[in-house]
Amino acid sequence: MLKLIIGNKAYSSWSLRGWLAAKLSGLPFEEVVVPLYDADWDKRREGDEFAPSSGKVPILWDGDDIVVWDSLAIVEYLNEKSGGDKFWPADPAARAMARSMAAEMHSGFAPLRRKHSMNVRQVYDPTQPDDDVAADLSRIYELWAQARARFGQGGDYLFGEFGAADIMFAPVATRIVTYSLPCPRFAMGYIITLLQHPWMQDWIASAQEEDWVLEQYEQPVK
Amino acid sequence: MLKLIIGNKAYSSWSLRGWLAAKLSGLPFEEVVVPLYDADWDKRREGDEFAPSSGKVPILWDGDDIVVWDSLAIVEYLNEKSGGDKFWPADPAARAMARSMAAEMHSGFAPLRRKHSMNVRQVYDPTQPDDDVAADLSRIYELWAQARARFGQGGDYLFGEFGAADIMFAPVATRIVTYSLPCPRFAMGYIITLLQHPWMQDWIASAQEEDWVLEQYEQPVK
Repeated sequence: MLKLIIGNKAYSSWSLRGWLAAKLSGLPFEEVVVPLYDADWDKRREGDEFAPSSGKVPILWDGDDIVVWDSLAIVEYLNEKSGGDKFWPADPAARAMARSMAAEMHSGFAPLRRKHSMNVRQVYDPTQPDDDVAADLSRIYELWAQARARFGQGGDYLFGEFGAADIMFAPVATRIVTYSLPCPRFAMGYIITLLQHPWMQDWIASAQEEDWVLEQYEQPVK
Repeated sequence: MLKLIIGNKAYSSWSLRGWLAAKLSGLPFEEVVVPLYDADWDKRREGDEFAPSSGKVPILWDGDDIVVWDSLAIVEYLNEKSGGDKFWPADPAARAMARSMAAEMHSGFAPLRRKHSMNVRQVYDPTQPDDDVAADLSRIYELWAQARARFGQGGDYLFGEFGAADIMFAPVATRIVTYSLPCPRFAMGYIITLLQHPWMQDWIASAQEEDWVLEQYEQPVK
């Protein structure tokens, strides 16, 4: 049985990616939600289950020996474990683009991520984003537009059906809504599609029920 | 025929990863070295071959339609194209750890990367690294030690044979030498093994022959 350790659903964007990947795999998994930065945090992150990642989430355990501690690695692990056809498009050019986009999201867009942390419980008034955030958004919209135009014909997601590229960009979609960031019409259409996905609805509803509030994530702009 | 676009061999750490992946695939590829930040840089990065990545390297083209523009995506692309058995260990626990380590390198260790950029032509005197760099190094050595101890029996690399995890950490190994960073004995043994690999020797030799010098990469500490 798979066990996925994740952080607060309100705030932990990487956890959302790992959790969506577990859902997409279709495999049964136990979900363990751990409050980030609560009173027991320092003690808990030294525990055995956190040791491989030195305390970061998400962490996927498959039995007692197999552990995967990064969201993109979890995607590739579950892709192989679930048969190899659920996460990436089959067409080689689409597959290459989806993997490149997922990797670019994995290592990039630091200004957007740092200045607009995920908080799926809030919607703030629009403000003008900093130039570096605006550049990140411009690149993201360009990637979404190209994927949809070249490979999106088979459905409403980036490469048609819901897949790993959508998983990697899902937290960005919630940030654009939370901070009312500038967004062209086609991109807002994609964001709405993504937020209406039953798994996203499930995640956001669970986040509403969480009763811890971390002040550092409850500010309209950093 | 594959075509790999890379930057200066002296400085471009991500290019080194893409190039080692191309070598490991065993597939024939054309190598195009493009000087980063020379006089034609702004013009060239707007060209068609660079468009998918908005100018970043490495970029792998497979024919005219398939393009992969991130080093970790190139690893996964070439892993699939070359038969699926060259890049990651076959044992599931080892494979999960190798993928997690590669992903952690892909998105992490920003202080080490920012303050000690790759320069395979230099060796500077030892200095005390900043605390954040020291923390990065400590985590890297811990990962190397665990991989070698748990899964390294079949050879001298992280998971025995040379693979994707070694590729992802190869630029770090050169940085430790270039900046004479503190390094425990076992880790220095691994670094020497890595630097003696014929492909690393080939890369470093080619870098010596490059005749451009970029001042921002020629400083002992930033």
